[in-house]
Amino acid sequence: MEIKKVKRSEDYSAWYNNLVKHADLAEHSAVKGCMVIKPYGYAIWETMQAELDRRFKETGHQNAYFPLFIPKSFFSKEASHVDGFAKECAVVTHYRLKVDENTREIVVDPDAKLDEELIVRPTSETIIWNTYRDWIQSYRDLPILINQWANVVRWEMRTRLFLRTAEFLWQEGHTAHATAEEAIAETKQMLEVYADFAENILAVPVIKGVKTPNERFAGALDTYCIEGLMQDGKALQMGTSHFLGQNFAKAFDVKYVTKENTKEYVWATSWGVSTRLMGALIMSHSDDEGLVLPPRLAPIQVVIVPIFRKEAEQSLVMEKADAYFAALKAAGIRVKLDARDNQSPGFKFAEYELKGVPVRIAIGPRDVTNGTVEVARRDTKEKQVMAETDLVHKIEHLLEQIQTNLYQKALDYRTEHITAVNTWDEFKDILENKTGFVSAHWDGTSETEQKIKEETKATIRCIPLNNHLEEGVCVYSGKPSTQRVLFAKAY
Amino acid sequence: MEIKKVKRSEDYSAWYNNLVKHADLAEHSAVKGCMVIKPYGYAIWETMQAELDRRFKETGHQNAYFPLFIPKSFFSKEASHVDGFAKECAVVTHYRLKVDENTREIVVDPDAKLDEELIVRPTSETIIWNTYRDWIQSYRDLPILINQWANVVRWEMRTRLFLRTAEFLWQEGHTAHATAEEAIAETKQMLEVYADFAENILAVPVIKGVKTPNERFAGALDTYCIEGLMQDGKALQMGTSHFLGQNFAKAFDVKYVTKENTKEYVWATSWGVSTRLMGALIMSHSDDEGLVLPPRLAPIQVVIVPIFRKEAEQSLVMEKADAYFAALKAAGIRVKLDARDNQSPGFKFAEYELKGVPVRIAIGPRDVTNGTVEVARRDTKEKQVMAETDLVHKIEHLLEQIQTNLYQKALDYRTEHITAVNTWDEFKDILENKTGFVSAHWDGTSETEQKIKEETKATIRCIPLNNHLEEGVCVYSGKPSTQRVLFAKAY
Repeated sequence: MEIKKVKRSEDYSAWYNNLVKHADLAEHSAVKGCMVIKPYGYAIWETMQAELDRRFKETGHQNAYFPLFIPKSFFSKEASHVDGFAKECAVVTHYRLKVDENTREIVVDPDAKLDEELIVRPTSETIIWNTYRDWIQSYRDLPILINQWANVVRWEMRTRLFLRTAEFLWQEGHTAHATAEEAIAETKQMLEVYADFAENILAVPVIKGVKTPNERFAGALDTYCIEGLMQDGKALQMGTSHFLGQNFAKAFDVKYVTKENTKEYVWATSWGVSTRLMGALIMSHSDDEGLVLPPRLAPIQVVIVPIFRKEAEQSLVMEKADAYFAALKAAGIRVKLDARDNQSPGFKFAEYELKGVPVRIAIGPRDVTNGTVEVARRDTKEKQVMAETDLVHKIEHLLEQIQTNLYQKALDYRTEHITAVNTWDEFKDILENKTGFVSAHWDGTSETEQKIKEETKATIRCIPLNNHLEEGVCVYSGKPSTQRVLFAKAY
Repeated sequence: MEIKKVKRSEDYSAWYNNLVKHADLAEHSAVKGCMVIKPYGYAIWETMQAELDRRFKETGHQNAYFPLFIPKSFFSKEASHVDGFAKECAVVTHYRLKVDENTREIVVDPDAKLDEELIVRPTSETIIWNTYRDWIQSYRDLPILINQWANVVRWEMRTRLFLRTAEFLWQEGHTAHATAEEAIAETKQMLEVYADFAENILAVPVIKGVKTPNERFAGALDTYCIEGLMQDGKALQMGTSHFLGQNFAKAFDVKYVTKENTKEYVWATSWGVSTRLMGALIMSHSDDEGLVLPPRLAPIQVVIVPIFRKEAEQSLVMEKADAYFAALKAAGIRVKLDARDNQSPGFKFAEYELKGVPVRIAIGPRDVTNGTVEVARRDTKEKQVMAETDLVHKIEHLLEQIQTNLYQKALDYRTEHITAVNTWDEFKDILENKTGFVSAHWDGTSETEQKIKEETKATIRCIPLNNHLEEGVCVYSGKPSTQRVLFAKAY
């Protein structure tokens, strides 16, 4: 395969771009900032969707679909919301093209100007809460537990495949509740759903926490988050769950009649994860040979590569390969048999390594004679000769082992990269040289947070949930502090 | 339920709108022309998606995702394509909002004007074929068999929920082939997939045919279609599959090196179905009481309504209801137990009728004593008392019967409404008074087709596949004709 190998250790960013391209995950499109998600990348995203969707439904949510466009005036209704999104909105101003009579070129028809401009949704709180006004009259209409799978657009100048693109795919949950307590419980429940998904499916350990006011979603009273740590020591926000209070209910006048026959504003949450998770996945496990996929997400969990030279060998080997394929498939394993005869086994090995297939089974004539196969695992690159007896169970077990190992490896890395510091010099030193999360006392002010960001590019990733409280002094200002928070440079 | 009942026989269009609203399928949004698909409607769409997606994958297709936006210049590259879509394009011209310094209002930032306007995709041939140019070098890269699930926008002035909306959801397949034969075979294969889905899942019989040049997709050499007949005698195009020839390959310069080492343009197909299928579903089966759903699509296939007055009865009845629920669920039936005690059984009956739930099981104290249940089917409204012995199998069988019956009923209606005519007076009479498809000789010219449309609003829905050839004279022009084609008024 003609792939320019780029080492993680030499240029992490170039390694990432190279991997996304050559593993056929995604590419830049002709439209600035928008990506094409290629079939292999999309298949991984579909598995993520299925796993998340199942969890949403199990927790009582239903899917629905709201318009792509949001009237400009809706944005103005929640002040901090518009502040947050105004600078990155794609705006539709016209609804027709025409042929210019002089140049014969296709131009925007000036007669087809919209009375009110439409914004391509960067997030859907405003259009959804405008709709909820008609859906909610009484406490009997609550809660509303809705999720939407959709594309959204936030105009970005500096884009990075999966991590930061102008258009991306995501899900956004929008729920409405009678009480603040219930809304907060929902916010926390969905954070747990995200954490469970990240750790058990993506095999990425996450820290659950709350954002500081500076880092909150535009329009939220509280933003909960899960934060992952990538292999280069930078943090990645992998999902957020917002307690929106009554902000959107007030902006869109959504009230309900209580059991006691009073009228109250409705309480809201919203929560979302996006194709950014693909970035988290890639940057948590992959290596210089290519992608490494946790088995629960892998579109192909096991690939069988038959090895033969002569025609006589071929039928012998293929017979066994077919049998293994059928047995593994029958057990519900996503298995592929690569019987192409115009590519060498070596070529195939490299290709499936690049694509992160967790387990490779090779079978040659001698294996057939011996009743064995050669099994290679992608995560540790270990190879072993395995007797064919009880093969399916052994492979199932191996897949579970790989899933667990990937998680444990990522967890070990993260554990090593949470460093408690007590001085400003230490803070800067760890951040620059060791990288990862820095656990430090902070005086709780936005000013200090801002100054630390300006001087070091580190942000407060979160105040971990159930944080241990302890007396201390702010690592930057020296003012009193009651707890440590987690700083890091982040994507 | 406070529902203004509208009869199909009195005002079909009002009946449709009323049904879509009160069965909680969809509603108009605050954005002109865009709909909100409500959870119940979306659940039906999700089942359609799952059934179609499985069929696409079984025929070797993979999903991918391409950008929402298309640069304006891409449209100009295929002449008939831009002609077809230019008049209904939403155009993005700016990428930022700002606060006006004088009025303090949110306005479009004039400094953030795009160099080239972006079109919100009305269909994705252009952006996809621009991408395929980089993906295809040799015959070894072919075929490319890709599908995309996406939202698209075609600016419509007169909209109708599901049938015609500015934004709608669909899937669009885009395939690339080495030969015309292979591309034509793909076009036909996908037509068969659509017909199979329509008939076996939606229970809507369809006529497979080819469009006349007038009705072809903008940029296609041939458009194949499936046409359904709604209860009001109007036809509905339910899906199309296009043979695009080399039009887009030429427009975007997509060539491949053949085995013989020559360079050839690539052959293309595209095919799609959309949320319009929801309209077809509703208009094929539903009645004055509400929606009627074929079991294979119903989000709830069976609802259990317990009936009791006193508390002593409640525990008795609920115990049985729980047991039936568990047994049906274990058999893979989508079953709901409605145990709400603040609504009467009568209210519940009406609600599930309105929502089209295929089978309703009612259990009262006497049923418990007798070991029976009352089973009502939505399609025929027949009720029967059923012994509980072997209940699951009986219900499974009943669901199959309902599926078959709905299809047969729709097929009978269609068979009665295909009328062969030989004179122009007869043509007009049947079209006005009997409605449905009119099978008539046509001279093959666009002029005649156009005149018939102007005089009667009827269009040629299709030339049926494997059409019987027979000598005749055009019903309008009297010129010679070799076959009958199907005319109808259509949605």
